[in-house]
Amino acid sequence: MIIVMQQGASRDELAEVKKRIRDLGYKPHVIHGATRNVIGAVGDERGKSVLQSLESLPGVENVVPILKPFKLASREVKPEPSEVEIAPGLVVGGKELIVIAGPCSVESEEQIVGTAKSVKQAGAKLLRGGAYKPRTSPYSFQGMEEDGLKLLATARAETGLPIVTEVVNPRDVELVARYADVMQVGARNVQNFALLKMLGQLDKPILLKRGMATTIQEFLMSAEYILSEGNQKVILCERGIRTFETATRNTLDISAVPVLKGQTHLPVIIDPSHATGHAHLVPSMCYASVAAGADGLIVEVHPTPETAASDGPQSLRPAEFSAMMEKLTLFASAAERSL
Amino acid sequence: MIIVMQQGASRDELAEVKKRIRDLGYKPHVIHGATRNVIGAVGDERGKSVLQSLESLPGVENVVPILKPFKLASREVKPEPSEVEIAPGLVVGGKELIVIAGPCSVESEEQIVGTAKSVKQAGAKLLRGGAYKPRTSPYSFQGMEEDGLKLLATARAETGLPIVTEVVNPRDVELVARYADVMQVGARNVQNFALLKMLGQLDKPILLKRGMATTIQEFLMSAEYILSEGNQKVILCERGIRTFETATRNTLDISAVPVLKGQTHLPVIIDPSHATGHAHLVPSMCYASVAAGADGLIVEVHPTPETAASDGPQSLRPAEFSAMMEKLTLFASAAERSL
Amino acid sequence: MIIVMQQGASRDELAEVKKRIRDLGYKPHVIHGATRNVIGAVGDERGKSVLQSLESLPGVENVVPILKPFKLASREVKPEPSEVEIAPGLVVGGKELIVIAGPCSVESEEQIVGTAKSVKQAGAKLLRGGAYKPRTSPYSFQGMEEDGLKLLATARAETGLPIVTEVVNPRDVELVARYADVMQVGARNVQNFALLKMLGQLDKPILLKRGMATTIQEFLMSAEYILSEGNQKVILCERGIRTFETATRNTLDISAVPVLKGQTHLPVIIDPSHATGHAHLVPSMCYASVAAGADGLIVEVHPTPETAASDGPQSLRPAEFSAMMEKLTLFASAAERSL
Amino acid sequence: MIIVMQQGASRDELAEVKKRIRDLGYKPHVIHGATRNVIGAVGDERGKSVLQSLESLPGVENVVPILKPFKLASREVKPEPSEVEIAPGLVVGGKELIVIAGPCSVESEEQIVGTAKSVKQAGAKLLRGGAYKPRTSPYSFQGMEEDGLKLLATARAETGLPIVTEVVNPRDVELVARYADVMQVGARNVQNFALLKMLGQLDKPILLKRGMATTIQEFLMSAEYILSEGNQKVILCERGIRTFETATRNTLDISAVPVLKGQTHLPVIIDPSHATGHAHLVPSMCYASVAAGADGLIVEVHPTPETAASDGPQSLRPAEFSAMMEKLTLFASAAERSL
Repeated sequence: MIIVMQQGASRDELAEVKKRIRDLGYKPHVIHGATRNVIGAVGDERGKSVLQSLESLPGVENVVPILKPFKLASREVKPEPSEVEIAPGLVVGGKELIVIAGPCSVESEEQIVGTAKSVKQAGAKLLRGGAYKPRTSPYSFQGMEEDGLKLLATARAETGLPIVTEVVNPRDVELVARYADVMQVGARNVQNFALLKMLGQLDKPILLKRGMATTIQEFLMSAEYILSEGNQKVILCERGIRTFETATRNTLDISAVPVLKGQTHLPVIIDPSHATGHAHLVPSMCYASVAAGADGLIVEVHPTPETAASDGPQSLRPAEFSAMMEKLTLFASAAERSL
Repeated sequence: MIIVMQQGASRDELAEVKKRIRDLGYKPHVIHGATRNVIGAVGDERGKSVLQSLESLPGVENVVPILKPFKLASREVKPEPSEVEIAPGLVVGGKELIVIAGPCSVESEEQIVGTAKSVKQAGAKLLRGGAYKPRTSPYSFQGMEEDGLKLLATARAETGLPIVTEVVNPRDVELVARYADVMQVGARNVQNFALLKMLGQLDKPILLKRGMATTIQEFLMSAEYILSEGNQKVILCERGIRTFETATRNTLDISAVPVLKGQTHLPVIIDPSHATGHAHLVPSMCYASVAAGADGLIVEVHPTPETAASDGPQSLRPAEFSAMMEKLTLFASAAERSL
Repeated sequence: MIIVMQQGASRDELAEVKKRIRDLGYKPHVIHGATRNVIGAVGDERGKSVLQSLESLPGVENVVPILKPFKLASREVKPEPSEVEIAPGLVVGGKELIVIAGPCSVESEEQIVGTAKSVKQAGAKLLRGGAYKPRTSPYSFQGMEEDGLKLLATARAETGLPIVTEVVNPRDVELVARYADVMQVGARNVQNFALLKMLGQLDKPILLKRGMATTIQEFLMSAEYILSEGNQKVILCERGIRTFETATRNTLDISAVPVLKGQTHLPVIIDPSHATGHAHLVPSMCYASVAAGADGLIVEVHPTPETAASDGPQSLRPAEFSAMMEKLTLFASAAERSL
Repeated sequence: MIIVMQQGASRDELAEVKKRIRDLGYKPHVIHGATRNVIGAVGDERGKSVLQSLESLPGVENVVPILKPFKLASREVKPEPSEVEIAPGLVVGGKELIVIAGPCSVESEEQIVGTAKSVKQAGAKLLRGGAYKPRTSPYSFQGMEEDGLKLLATARAETGLPIVTEVVNPRDVELVARYADVMQVGARNVQNFALLKMLGQLDKPILLKRGMATTIQEFLMSAEYILSEGNQKVILCERGIRTFETATRNTLDISAVPVLKGQTHLPVIIDPSHATGHAHLVPSMCYASVAAGADGLIVEVHPTPETAASDGPQSLRPAEFSAMMEKLTLFASAAERSL
């Protein structure tokens, strides 16, 4: 933390700020500047947010955080990339690119099993499908709940594909964990800390989606909630942020991939379906994501998007998914990844 | 919904879209345009989101929602403003402006009771204080939990001020409801639909904060979740949205007040503390909020902001709060409100 | 500037950074932190942006600006508020609130003279009207150009109201200056530095609008362009910023008023018409602006908004403007301003 | 345009709106909805913005544009992609990917000629370099102006690389055109319509950068300004948009590539240097851009970024650029492009 004093702050005010810094367990270090003084507070980074309150002291102009407040997620604590194992021989964060595919919502046995078969054939390594759906409107389809989880299990039994599915309520963590191979935290729950803490106590991979207005630093702090409870199996997922642009549902923040790779050891995947909101934009964003260095993709696929209960416009048809996967191998190979 | 056909879409494609609209229970109405056709779908608004999937049909360029998807929150269903009663003689949404004040977090009996007394004396009608704190970092103070609720009850017993406090986990709804007069949903939980549905089943006022990246329409849909479960006592709270500007913690969207007033009958209050993040900006934003037509304010007040466990920089000292309240009476009177 | 070294940066890397800082004319001051070192660079603030390039040196993590890069606009150089004189007895930034009103575009003599008369009667002190219109589409009305300026002069002759009008091309500065009392720089030209430099050489008040995506710091740097060329008569105008919210044309950043007042001595006015884009939202935003401490308003008024060549939906009718002005006196008085 | 009537609008109000639509040269077409009526206005799209003013009529709720207001830039007018020829055998928008490289600012003969030689050797096809620099601060280096243009001409003479350089003032268009092969319009001037109109009268390629807060639709309208004046040689450049994220200078909107490709025939290139602001993020964004379907790149390269007069932190060193170009060939080939 850097505490910036006001121009013209008095000696006493400076002394008081130094005293407070020491009281909070940090060592003050004053730089006497041309127009004003600034004070560095030296000590353990994790607790430094408490220094922010010094902004209320007389003579203080503002308090500027300099360092990153996350620790377990950081490359400084663990420089080598983490590989998250999902099933024997199936890891996210390794040499192999992992593609997760499936419908937004589980709608019926025929739909989910059929989709599972076709995405598997095209090269997907996991099946996605929502049983608990956080929908903007209470009048929209809210998901099949446990019945949906059962159908996902059926699809897994028939195809061998592990399952990724979302949990939205801390109450349901145990139930969903009984079915899911990977627990997904959706964008709206990225700062649902009660949920994150519970998931931190599981021994199961967590797919954590970035929120629509979550900075990369906040995103890593949310991962830190899971890691600090003991669960190290966290997969980060960029899925578009909210901006002024309305041509796409969100704006895919593709540079988040190299930014995250520079700051954390955790694997990073991309969701181009929610990022763009339109199926015809998805394939090129898949290629771009892999070229940018992503460890995988999560893509919405539906047998008949025009009848989908949710997110139809952004779902690829199985044939479109298959064509995308074929072309993706070329980009994977350019990125020195296998698919 | 307006379905816009591509230029050059075929007659068959148009016929298929019309058929699908009818299949979904709506009546298609084609406008033959200069360069392309557009189709209006006539019928009940609430279910229309299902029409969005038609974007996946051949020949369709895009699907444009025209009307608002909320109903119970809308002025069209209930034109006159709603008054939410908190205690006998104490309503939000009436002639009287309601000011809620108190610290971000409950920290000790002395802190919360002392603050309660001073804000009451200055004219506050409710006491705020957090016992469950959603914090960006797992290493930051997370709140006193039930002990904090008990201290709030003590403060209420000593001052008579009803209590507003946040609930973050559906599991705690019942517990918090035992202590709170008004249940607060924080900005990070505005789309925590599991929580909203449970709160919809209470007979207790809900203070619903807008999220950092929540549009006004989405905000009203979140209110609709509570209303559609039966609880009509919803108070909306604008608290700043996330923008590119970094001089303030968030950007107070003050025009949300007249926009909301035009669309909904629910009362609207403003939180200038979280919106700005800096105590010296709070008083002028209080005056502006009242001038804009807000029904009340929720303001952070702390006896010693420089030692606050959270949000110190944005907390007013009791004397500052008191001075603000005094000046606020002038603006309240200009706005034809009592204070 | 604070130069943050990487964890594990070598002694030699640190030495090289210190040497470079000295080479650029600054004094390095190292703080040896718990996990890494940070270096403060002490010296004249204005040129410090050159230090940003040190981020490219080995061992440097990033370079963080701590202080504000503007000088002439700052309160530190000139603590007391500036009053910009427009005509004898007419100043912006004093006790008196100044309301500027008129149509978006000058369309005809009848329109501009009629509007001038009615806004004058309602209490406006200046007339606005565009003769050069920067329009998003080349197929939209582009303004009457010099003919428009002449009609503005006619309106001034008939009413005595000084004229505010926009200049968009450096080539036209001299011509527009021959007619205008105040030269307006529109939001799209806030970083048209060629234009700003020319206006800095005039002896005439400049109304500088903030851009849609301009931070407050950048806004003040744009003012600094004018000031540093010699023209001290700058009036700042907040007119809404671009955010994700679509219910309003832009989002009025009302807290920009106290933020600007804290950083600069220049007067600050608000344009609620462009900020909101809808006439029915304008009056409440006028009241809020005055309550927030603005020195004035610039409001679009048109005799028949439904036929306006531009910005009809956000224009008040003369009767609406007049009603707003009447109510505004109450808020002005609460804010201890005269109107 | 769709004109949405208020619920409960009267027959007379509807009749008046229909009349006004006809008066403006359009044909009204009413859809009688379940809760309210909506009116489609049929006719030429380009002039439809004038219909927006009908929002001011009694009984009208709002006016929703349905179609795109640009014409010459659209794929509907010209379905096949445009190729912009820069020199004999050198086109942007064809099979070959075009990489433009060079320093932010021209600083000296040695710097610009040396950089030109090294980027040419690495495969760049054009040289970039700024002689007129729009800088946020008046105290920052403003460019070498005509001397810089002369040095660019020297670099071209020595290497044969055509020159891309920015023009910021309509006054300088003629002068810059004497030296430049491609005229660049910077992000801050994307809506400097006076400048765009002048460039529309040249017979020279224009590289038009998207603004920080420019929607894709507005961006195409700016291109339309150039096209409608007669100059069809427009190259679009995405360079990052302004969002809440601060880890990068801007947020690279990579999905703008397929969105633009779907709407316009104009070629699209990417500037990953300004988008990210950090050199280490540039290579992966180059690969991603090509994978997304971009027609080229414009990349900042400086021999010694730590001494650069501007934009040092985002400039690649020649060796880094060369390594990036080598790896880029793999992605180009996966994208079926030559390099």
